[in-house]
Formats: sequence, structure tokens, C-alpha cells
Amino acid sequence: MNATLPTHAGEAVRVEGWIHRRRTFAGLTFLVLRDRSGLTQAVVTDGSTRRQVEDLPEETVVRVEGTVRANPKAPGGVEVIAPVVTPLSPPASPSPVELWRPRLDAALPTLLDHGAISWRHPAQNAVWQVAAASLRGFRQTLDAAGFTEVATPKVTATASESGADVFSVDWFGRPAFLAQSPQLHKQVLVGVFERVYETGPVFRAEPHDTARHLAQYTSLDVELGFLEDHHDVLAVLRDVLAGMAAAVAEQVGGGTRPPGLELPVVPAVVPVLHFRDALRLVGADPEEPDLAPEHERALSRWALREHGSEFLAVEGYPAAKRPFYTHPQPDDPRWTNSFDLLFRGLELVTGGQRLHRHADYVRALTARGEDPERYRSYLDVFAHGMPPHGGFAIGLERWVARLTGLDNVRRSTLFPRDLHRLTP
Amino acid sequence: MNATLPTHAGEAVRVEGWIHRRRTFAGLTFLVLRDRSGLTQAVVTDGSTRRQVEDLPEETVVRVEGTVRANPKAPGGVEVIAPVVTPLSPPASPSPVELWRPRLDAALPTLLDHGAISWRHPAQNAVWQVAAASLRGFRQTLDAAGFTEVATPKVTATASESGADVFSVDWFGRPAFLAQSPQLHKQVLVGVFERVYETGPVFRAEPHDTARHLAQYTSLDVELGFLEDHHDVLAVLRDVLAGMAAAVAEQVGGGTRPPGLELPVVPAVVPVLHFRDALRLVGADPEEPDLAPEHERALSRWALREHGSEFLAVEGYPAAKRPFYTHPQPDDPRWTNSFDLLFRGLELVTGGQRLHRHADYVRALTARGEDPERYRSYLDVFAHGMPPHGGFAIGLERWVARLTGLDNVRRSTLFPRDLHRLTP
Repeated sequence: MNATLPTHAGEAVRVEGWIHRRRTFAGLTFLVLRDRSGLTQAVVTDGSTRRQVEDLPEETVVRVEGTVRANPKAPGGVEVIAPVVTPLSPPASPSPVELWRPRLDAALPTLLDHGAISWRHPAQNAVWQVAAASLRGFRQTLDAAGFTEVATPKVTATASESGADVFSVDWFGRPAFLAQSPQLHKQVLVGVFERVYETGPVFRAEPHDTARHLAQYTSLDVELGFLEDHHDVLAVLRDVLAGMAAAVAEQVGGGTRPPGLELPVVPAVVPVLHFRDALRLVGADPEEPDLAPEHERALSRWALREHGSEFLAVEGYPAAKRPFYTHPQPDDPRWTNSFDLLFRGLELVTGGQRLHRHADYVRALTARGEDPERYRSYLDVFAHGMPPHGGFAIGLERWVARLTGLDNVRRSTLFPRDLHRLTP
Repeated sequence: MNATLPTHAGEAVRVEGWIHRRRTFAGLTFLVLRDRSGLTQAVVTDGSTRRQVEDLPEETVVRVEGTVRANPKAPGGVEVIAPVVTPLSPPASPSPVELWRPRLDAALPTLLDHGAISWRHPAQNAVWQVAAASLRGFRQTLDAAGFTEVATPKVTATASESGADVFSVDWFGRPAFLAQSPQLHKQVLVGVFERVYETGPVFRAEPHDTARHLAQYTSLDVELGFLEDHHDVLAVLRDVLAGMAAAVAEQVGGGTRPPGLELPVVPAVVPVLHFRDALRLVGADPEEPDLAPEHERALSRWALREHGSEFLAVEGYPAAKRPFYTHPQPDDPRWTNSFDLLFRGLELVTGGQRLHRHADYVRALTARGEDPERYRSYLDVFAHGMPPHGGFAIGLERWVARLTGLDNVRRSTLFPRDLHRLTP
């Protein structure tokens, strides 16, 4: 229902929105109007207005002017009577998805082909309100902690995360790449601002066609200097997640709640498990270099059982599987000061401590058979005084999908881009 | 000076940051430390610490532990005495720009080649704090007015602003383009959320090599439905600018002020001048289809003189020079319901009312010799009920440059991208 109406019982009102549904009975027609605050029911009894409304298909945009009347049986306890209806758009063509149904049951490709229509459904709209609230909570938490928001280039001369899975751009005739992450830029900006964040698009030419990969997604990036190790990064991550969860709770308190939403409880301290112990716990080969999706699910179940936590940080990932900028574990360089954060069975965040000495970068790249010269414009900065630092990146669409119980990140992305999809 | 120190006079403190400057006198060495809160002076008298500090070049990262002492002659009225200095990075290589000087006087290419060093200068750093505060003020104003933040695709199958000046991307072997703006996506999202905004990168393959063009810039995009005409858009723009200016004022009140900063006064109503009258006012040929830079400067001077306003909206731009989605001026379709906002002599914002009927789009595109089929995935939405709507886009870097008196937008961009520059 329209959140602002109940205060106006007995008064004249004007509501503008979309015809969500018309229902015709013997002596009257119900006109249900949808706007950003919800649904409003208008009761049409006048004969010519009934005929007018019958000619206005669902999704036509109209202005309704009438009088508010209390009615305990109407949505929200009020309805609009004696409405005068003025169309604000031509009569709408038949919708490719039936928005008036309680659940959108169209197939995923249909929903995505008509994204700007599908998202009008109140339950789908509410999913994106969760995303917007998450962004708000993310920024508020970091602004309060002395972080500076930055904007980094999305086209670069060098791939940031080694050469794989990168899109090529023709830059005035020169070869260039879409940024896979703001990684190297956010790191060198620690030298300027100490603590930085960015919310923006990142691009992965993922050949995977799965329910959790997108070719463009929104990355919530954080980087901070002057830390002991990756546990300081985890402490900031914990506060950020708590801030995001609180902003979502506030949002759904005042608006529509996505049907599958389950708000998480962020523990005061996120439990941490070493990668080596994680492998043992799930019964995997101790030489495995990474966690399989079923391992991540098993570890999440374990954290919930043992620690009552929906969040689990797995630290110490093997150096061989982490990017060149990852800081080794000081007492055993086979492992690293890095972590993945698992949330409800899925990797949601990657983070850790980075190298901060120029010589360490040259060594790390050389050991991987990469030419440090390719990274020169970033690496040079590390010769000019960089503090110990680290950071993390949260995938917004994964966070929202986990929070709202969606089985595919495409359902928490307004206009997904993937191996097959380049429109709308 | 370090903003947190004065409260600690007489106490032991720890400050971590960069060696900004060392000054050696007969019996003592001043060590000036820079961190995100400012500069802190430490007084070194102990012989071995003096020798240690002499071996630590400017920009080396250190921890300083000592005792706070009041000293009216020190920056901020306090200094740190008997410091113990612990290096946190290897000794820094000589800096390509001299950060300790009151003004960075290196040439622009040098500053940009070493952006992550140049931005460390307190005056440069303060410029980006103005940008971050502007983003904050933009979002706060719109959140309070019921707008929803959205994220749109940056790679599309169709160029959004006609075919010129667009970068090509290889999308899994298919041709694609970097988005020149979120224009069509933000418009169709009005059908979902009524009021939307996005802050994000846009890409223009500008062949211009000028002080006001960038190939990637940060666009602050707004779109709203249910309006009468472009004057409703201008009213929202006015509030947004006032919110941005207020956030900047708050930021510089508590931090370093960029030397050239002049805060604007945003009038309660922005003065509006019709394009036709603007041409007459500057003495241009009445058939001119656009305003030249010198016209924009003359009009800004006129607005300041006649209306006491640093902002001027020029409305009614000729249809021939506006994009296909622009709404015509109802009483004379040679003109449009669009505007440019001039600020201190420069075009800062473009906005206006858009077409909202499917048939109008087909007509407009056909009249321009464009095939509506190319835009089908967006245009289809206009057959499904779209309200009258409009919006605007602010260029963040231009706003910051004007606010801080910088002569080139590259000075208000962390890592500019242009015709020549693809690094760092």
C-alpha cells in the first residue's frame, strides 16, 4: 500500500503510478496502483470511469485523484474512492511477464531479456533496495572510520590480476584492458590517503557459465595501511559487514521485504580457520591448492555448528594459488596472510595483507616468470615509502543473492553481463 | 598538524606516517611527519636518533613514539619530544616531485606520470577530499529525496549517444562498446524505481586534447519520473548542488583546504535563460546551433552581474544538436526541453526532459536516419508504460576543478585517461 496514504483519511489525494491490476465485479472495479511506496487500491463505481479503466491495460501510467477512505479490508487499511483517472502514458502493450502475480514465475532468460520490466515486480524491486541499502551501509561505515572514497581507471595498459580472463579494448588504436579489479590502484593510493574505498564495476572475461559468475559485477573495494597483518583487515571487514547488515535491516523495516530475505547476525569476531585445517576438516587431500564449492558449503555448516556464525574466514591460502601481491605467512612462506570469507556456503570476500616493499614485488614477479617491467608504473610507487597494508573486495551481487536466498547472481543484478548476455 | 595530538599534551603518543621533511640545526633535528590528519613535528636531540633520521630520506614510512609537548611555535601548537623512530618501510628512493614544498611546482606530465606520489602533497590530497565530500553530499541529498542507487552495465551492444566517440571492446569474440553514459539504462529504470541515481565511470573516445576533456570521467547521473517538464529536473539539480556544496564546506572545515577553493553559494532558484536569448545576449549569430566556450564565459559573467548567481541554466537548446531522446519544447519543436548548467564559465551539467512514448522514439530515430531496431532492447520498455521523466549528469572532475580553481580537469582526477595517457 502507499505508505503516505493512511495519514490522509477523508482528504483529497493524488497518486501517480502504474496500473498494477484491475479487478471487475458486478457493481465496481478495483484499480490497484503501484508506485515506489507500494500498492494503492482505488474503488471505481462510476460507469464512465469503469469503462475508461477497462480500456487501460496493466502497466499503463496514470494519475488518480480521489478521496481517501478507511477500509480495514483494503491493503494498508485505506482506499481511494470516487477516483478521477488521467492517463500519463499511452495504453501499455501486454507485459512479457505478469507483474501482478504474487510471484514472478517466468523463466530466468525471460526475466533477464525484459529486466527493466521484471524489476518492477515489488518482490524483485525489493531485492535491489537491499543492494542500495548495502552500498549505503558500506560507505557510512568506512566514512566514519576515516576512509576516503576514490575512483580508479577502468581501462589500463596492464592486466591487474595476471593475464587471464581479461577483456581487450581498442584505446585510440592502442591495445588496452578492462580493469579486473582496482587492486594495484587502490594499493598505491594507501600511500596518499592511508585508507581508501571504491564501489564500482569490475570486469572478468570468465569463460564460466555458472550461477555465481558475472562478466561485470560491482566490487566493494577497501584498502588500508599501517596494520600488523591480515587480522587487522578482517576486523575492518567485520565492521563493514555489520554496517551493511544494519542498513539492510533499516531499509526493509520501512519498505517491502524480499520474500527470501534472512538478515545475518555478524559476530563480534569472525571465526578464523587456517586453510590447512580447513582441508583436514572436510577430509580433502592435504595437497589440494584450493577449496571446492562443496568444501565451502561444508565449512560454512561447520562454522554455524561450532561457532554459531554464518561467516567464516579461511586464512593462509597456498602462495601458489594467490596473486603475486599477496604477503606470505611470515613463519611459513608456503602459506599466505590472505583469506576468503565464506558466507552461507559461498565465497563472498577475498582479502589479505599485501607486499609493501619494492624488492619483494620484483622477487615475487620474477619467481612467477613475469616481467616486473610490465607493472612498472605501479611498482615504482613501492620504492617511495609504502606502509604495511592490506584490504578486501566484496562482490555486491553475491552478497545480495545470499542475503535474499536467490539461487543465481543474475537475479540480484539489474542488467547482467555474461558469456552470452550483452543486452539489454 | 596532527588533529588528534593537542588533546594529548604531556602524554606518550605514537604517530605513524611519512617523513615529510627533515631540518637539521646545530643542536637538533626537526622531523616533520605526514599522516592523513596532517603534519606533526618531532624534535630530535639525541645523537644516535639524529644520525638515524639523517639516513632516512623523505617519504620513508616510520613510526614515531614520544611525548607531546605544547609549543606555540610548532604547527598546531604541539610537538613530539624524545622520539623513538622505527622505520616501517625501506628508505625511500628520491621522490620524482618535491612533496615538502608548499606548492607542487612540477610540470603537469611529471605530476601525472607519478600520480600516486603527487597526490600525497597535502594541497593535492585536499582536492580529492573535496571530490569525496561531493560524492557524499550528492548521495545524501538524493537518498533523502527517495532516489534509489543503481548500477548499470558499462559494456553494451549499442552505443548510447549515437555512434561517435565510442571505445570498442572484444566481448568473447563479439563486438561491443564501452558505455558513453548510463542514459538509456537510467531512463528505463525510472519505470522500476521512479527516481534513480548512479555514480560511476563513463567513457568517451574524445579525439579532443583539451584541459576539459577526459576519456574516462566520473558521471553523477540522476533520472526521475512524474514531472511536468525540465524545470522539475532543474529544481532537483539545484538541491543536489546545494547538498554537494554543503558537504564540501563541512569537509574543509575539519581538514586541509585546497589553496584555490572558493565555495559557491547555490541560489534558492537557479536563473534560467533561453538558448535563443543567450545567443542574442552574447551577440552571436541567431542561427548558431551551440554555445562556444567564450559564450559560456560571457553568460556566466552576465548571470553573476544580473542575478548574483555563479550558476546559470541555459534551456531550449536546438533539437538538431541534442540527442534523439530529448523532449521537444511543446510550443516550438525547433527547441527542446533541455538545458546546460554553466558554473563559473564552464558547462558542468547537461540535463532535460526525455521522450517517454514508444512512438515518439521511433519517429525521432527515423527522422535522424537511425534504425530503431538497434535500440530495441531499451525502446521496447517505452511501450510498457513510462511516465514523463527527465534527468541530468554532473561531471565530478569538472565540478571539483571549478570549485578549487584548477585550470585542467586532469588535476582533479586521480589517474586521468585521455588520448595519450593510459598509465599509471
